[in-house]
Formats: sequence, structure tokens, C-alpha cells
Amino acid sequence: MNPRMAATFAPPVMEARRWLQGVAFPAHRPLINVSQAAPMEPPPEPLRKAIAEAALTDPAAHLYGPVLGLPELRAEVAAQWSSAYGGRIGAGQVAITQGCNQAFCAAMATLAGDGDEVILPTPWYFNHKMWLDMAGIRTVPLPTGDSLIPEVQRAAQLITGRTRAIVLVTPNNPAGVEYPRELIADFLALCRRHGIALILDETYRDFHSGTGAPHDLFADPDWSDTLIQLYSFSKAYRLTGHRVGAMVAHEDRLAEAEKFLDTVAICPNQLGQRAALWGMRNLGQWLAGERAEILERRAAIEAGFAALEGWTLMGAGAYFAYAAHPWPITSDDLARRLVAEAGVLLLPGTMFLPEADTGARQQVRIAFANIDLQGIGRLFERLSAFRP
Amino acid sequence: MNPRMAATFAPPVMEARRWLQGVAFPAHRPLINVSQAAPMEPPPEPLRKAIAEAALTDPAAHLYGPVLGLPELRAEVAAQWSSAYGGRIGAGQVAITQGCNQAFCAAMATLAGDGDEVILPTPWYFNHKMWLDMAGIRTVPLPTGDSLIPEVQRAAQLITGRTRAIVLVTPNNPAGVEYPRELIADFLALCRRHGIALILDETYRDFHSGTGAPHDLFADPDWSDTLIQLYSFSKAYRLTGHRVGAMVAHEDRLAEAEKFLDTVAICPNQLGQRAALWGMRNLGQWLAGERAEILERRAAIEAGFAALEGWTLMGAGAYFAYAAHPWPITSDDLARRLVAEAGVLLLPGTMFLPEADTGARQQVRIAFANIDLQGIGRLFERLSAFRP
Repeated sequence: MNPRMAATFAPPVMEARRWLQGVAFPAHRPLINVSQAAPMEPPPEPLRKAIAEAALTDPAAHLYGPVLGLPELRAEVAAQWSSAYGGRIGAGQVAITQGCNQAFCAAMATLAGDGDEVILPTPWYFNHKMWLDMAGIRTVPLPTGDSLIPEVQRAAQLITGRTRAIVLVTPNNPAGVEYPRELIADFLALCRRHGIALILDETYRDFHSGTGAPHDLFADPDWSDTLIQLYSFSKAYRLTGHRVGAMVAHEDRLAEAEKFLDTVAICPNQLGQRAALWGMRNLGQWLAGERAEILERRAAIEAGFAALEGWTLMGAGAYFAYAAHPWPITSDDLARRLVAEAGVLLLPGTMFLPEADTGARQQVRIAFANIDLQGIGRLFERLSAFRP
Repeated sequence: MNPRMAATFAPPVMEARRWLQGVAFPAHRPLINVSQAAPMEPPPEPLRKAIAEAALTDPAAHLYGPVLGLPELRAEVAAQWSSAYGGRIGAGQVAITQGCNQAFCAAMATLAGDGDEVILPTPWYFNHKMWLDMAGIRTVPLPTGDSLIPEVQRAAQLITGRTRAIVLVTPNNPAGVEYPRELIADFLALCRRHGIALILDETYRDFHSGTGAPHDLFADPDWSDTLIQLYSFSKAYRLTGHRVGAMVAHEDRLAEAEKFLDTVAICPNQLGQRAALWGMRNLGQWLAGERAEILERRAAIEAGFAALEGWTLMGAGAYFAYAAHPWPITSDDLARRLVAEAGVLLLPGTMFLPEADTGARQQVRIAFANIDLQGIGRLFERLSAFRP
């Protein structure tokens, strides 16, 4: 067995699912699952119909396609991005992947290898950490403190001759916070100065609380010398099960990523790509409604935590709330006990932080976008009634 | 840029597609594309309808599922395999992946890392070679000579303290040959003796010319200590665009593979998995007809080469013919010229062999399963009329 595999941990979401085994949830208190950032509802009916129609009438929807994705989808992303970010992005600078996680892996394959270093603000997105572990790349944690916002100066001090990239996720998973546009620009400048890449994961972009572009990096005509942007179609159009994501980067980097994607994927699945394309072309208005709904849930989360004794809401935004609990037990113990004693499945800070980080003991992630306002109300009832 | 990426080559199928750019194919002589092992027709109508139905009525078909795949599909594979191979395979020993290439990558991630060695018979399947290059694993070529069948004794001589696995593809891609059952058993014994894995890629199993199981490795109650079997649903049910494959291995290995698959995939796409399951449950009879059709095409290929002056058919089976051409030009030159001068796209031996291998100059792969009997007739007309 390759020792690299033992060097990383088991998939947290799957581990959390295993906590549910053997636990009975009574009818009057069904499970509240806020563990995974996953819409619980399927895509809207017109999109489901469009997928069914493609399955029935479009033979190419069942056959191999180009490694870097459906040309129409690449072009649509390029056009919508150019307009939304006020920059120039060509279809050749867009690759479609089997989900955004795969976009991260492909980007990383082109950037770093054995013994190289990548800087991740903490708390981190665990799949990023796992991939780096398995690839033999050293993760350099960039603690963000109580603000959950990484500091450029602190990041600069961590850069060495082996550093290949800094990864920013905004709106953040797990912390919910939205990074200020100036901060994102400062990180681009830092990375450019050091000749390293800035990976900007915007999976949750469509649920940003601000209007307009969340950053102006693409307005820089030289963006592709440093920036690699990642995106997911899963959240916007409720397509998590179809596995469609994107990477926006320099064409030369995509030519290298194509090698990785050819061997690990051959091509993204064709129906999922058609679904994403249909969504982009037809669901703008619907998505605006989804965003409004998520922002309403966020407000309910903020109000709920304000009234919840002892807890501190550290960050909230897009799909996530990140909070510190008040009890003298570890977040890992708390998470397991909440399953059985409160019917709540959330993820403990231990899954997002280096072992030595004391925050891991107190912090938890709540994927609140999964539940409606009524569900959020019930969640707070259960948290306030819980006693360790 | 990670230097590992430069150490491997660009995706051959995509490179070959680029040869088509700017070439006009007249109406009386349309392109004959035998470059990729890909059904040209979509799945049969009942399967397309089943996919559409799932898209419309099954919410879970759009949402995240378990990393290792749909439980019903894992169980169906386990049950059908146990019966077909006369062995005991549990659902927990089956993982579903985003295509068979990904199953190979996941298996390899659990087996080997930087500086390790893996033995590949040559000609090899290029995506295997590319992945090993990118992972820093040294590919040790096992030349198969004119028979295209690897020898156990020769393989034994290549095993070192760094060897982690031997990979067999049967029926073979690119060589078409079907490995004898005794040979496969001997390779298992060799691998077991040396404590290394045997990866058996059976992507083309459903088109084997023999009846009954092509090997009896699963009848060995200890198979999972050494064997990792790979499979693809793409060819049997014409689902290439859905990206669904499988890995059958020890549960402990799958627990490690789950880490890789979580980061690179999260889960296989749900509609594709439902399509594969529906195919397995309903298309047995249809698949038997597909196999008969492919075997008929193979007979036409054998007859055609017997009459084609100067060429030698080295291997034919499942989807592929592997042949040596008679001319004093490299296979690479030949392949490019055949596009423009004969309207034929095939892949040159250079894509399947180490640079130094002299076979690379003469050999070509023809994915004949892509064309019907009439198309095979036209292919031979064009090859016999061609003069370099």
C-alpha cells in the first residue's frame, strides 16, 4: 500500500455519514443534516426536462467528447465571465471538469509535485488538504485567527523557494466569510511578485451577499500569468450529482491539465455539461431567487446565533456558518453526541484544522443552505436545548 | 509548472483529432475514424428512455451520493461477477468510478508512489503510461514481441524491490489479443509470490470471442490479496459519455481508494450509474447481439488483412486490430498522411510504445468496432489503394 494514502485522512463527509449508522431518529425529531454543502432538492423541473430531452434526442449526449469539455459550455462560461467580471476571458482559457474538486486536482498537478509547498488559509477545505497530502505536497497552514480572513503580510512570511501556490476559497468553505475585493487583489499582487500561482476557488460565488463582481482580477489583462479560478455548477443549478466544474486559466496551463484530465476522466460527462449549459442560458432569474433565499437563511442564522447562549458565530455566508461552541468537550465529541442526542449532523473543526490548532476543539461548520427557515428554527431549538 | 507534466505526452486521441483540422473530406469519401474505441451510436432507445425517466422522476439522480458509488450498482456488479466468474465477490469489494481510467488512477494511487515501478506489457495503453509518468512512477516495459502476448518468465526478470504491480489488459488495448486463461493465472501466481498487485483491466471483456469466464482468478478464495480488476460500462452499453467504470478489489484497498476518489470526484455521476445499472439488469440479450456483431467485424478484419498486400495483422480482438504496415515511412508519418490522402484516422504505434522500440515505426492500431461491415470494406479499399 502506498504510504502516501495513510498520510491523509478518510473522507470527512463519508465518516460523518457513518456516525448515523445504527442511530434511530424518531418521527417527531427527524435528522437535521447540515454536514455537506448539498442542495437537498433536485434541479428545477424545466432543467430536469431539458436533461431528459437531451438524453432522448441528442446522441452526442451519450458519447465521448473533448477532454477539456463541451465547446459551447466553455464559450458560454467565457462570455458570461467576461461580462460579469469586466475582463477578457476566452473559451480557450476555460476547461470543464468532473466537478470543482477535480479542477483543483488538475490545477495542482500542473503546479506542484513532491516536496513542493502550497499555502492554505485555515480552517481549510478538507479535500484540498487531502489531495496535497496524497500528492506529496506540503500544506503550509495560514492561520486566519478569529476574523477568519487571511492576512497578506502573514502569507508573505510563509513563502519559500518551494512554494508553488496560495489557495483562496471565497465565499469561504468552511468559514462562510466573503473576502474583501481589495484583499483578493493584494493576494494576486503577492503571488505575482513571487512568481507563484493564486488559486481562487469561487464555488459559492453565486450566493455572495454583495452585488456586482466579487473581485476585479479578470480586469487585469495579465490575469492569466498568475490566476487560476475554479468554479462549480453544482450549487447554482443543484447539479451536485452530475459532477460539473470548471477551471479558468492560461491556455498553456490547460494544455498541461489536459494530460491529467485525459487520464483521470477522458472527458466530463456529457449530460451534466448540457445541464450546466442549459442552466447558464435559462436559469439566471431562478438563480437570483435561490440567492435571495440563501441570504434570508443567512440572516436567520445570524439572528439565531445572536440568541444562542455561549456560542460565537465566527463567520456566515454563502452555504456555511462557522461557529465556536461553549462547552468543555471537543468539537469531535460534540458532533458525534449531537447526532444521537439532538438529531443534528454537523462537521467538527477537527476536519478543517491542523491537529495542533486549538480552534479544532471548539469550532464547527454548519451547512445551513441545506435547510429552510423552519429547519433553521428547529436547529436552534435543538442546539439551545442540548447540554453536554 | 510541475516538471512531471512535461515528462509525459499530450493525450493521443486529442492529438489525433487535431490532425483533422483544416482537412476537407469530400462527400464521396467521408472520414473513416478508427482512432478511438468508441461506439458511434447512442445507447439503445429503452436505455435512453430509462435515463430520461430517472432525470424526471428520481431526485437522487441529481444529488451527491456515496464516494464509492450507488449501493445497488455495487451489489449488481458483485452478484453478476460472482456468477460469471464462479467466485465470491461482495458489494463491499466493488467501487464505482467516473470511468475505467479513473479506476486505474485510483488503484495506482493506493499502490505506488514516487520512485516505485510498475510493469506494463508493450504495446501499452497510453493513458496508463501517462498517469504513471505524472505520478513519478517508473514504467518498466515488458516487450511482447510479435505474439503480443506477455511472457511470465520475462516479467519475473523485471521485478525489483521497487515493483508494485503488473498491469494486464485483456482483451488487449491496443493489440486486440485475448490472453489465455492459464497465462492470466500464472501472472496472478507470479504477483502473489512477489507480494505485488496484479491489475487486470477487463474493459473489453464483453466482446471476448470465448464463451464462459475469460479467467478463473475470482474462484480463488484469496483473490483479493493480489488481484485488482478494472471494468468499464462504456463499451457494453454505449455509455462512453457518461463516465462509469468499476474497480473490484480488497475492501481495505477500496477504503484507501475512497480518499483518492473523494478528492478527485466526490462521487460518480448519478444518472450514469443508474444507466449502467439499468443496462446490467435489462440489456443482457441486447449485449449478446452487440458481441456477435463485433465478432463478425473482427472476422471481416481478419479476412481483409489476409488480402491486403504487405500488411501483417498482428492481433485482432474485441475493439482493436493491431497491424504492421509495409512501407519505409514511420507509423507516425503514415497516420498523418492517411488522414489527408485516404480519409482514414488511425493511431500510430508511436503512441503505444517506448520511443526506442522499433515496432513503433511499423505498427498501427485500428479501432474497428467503430465501423460496420460496409465501413470495414471501404477501409480496406482505401488502405490497398494508398501508396506512400
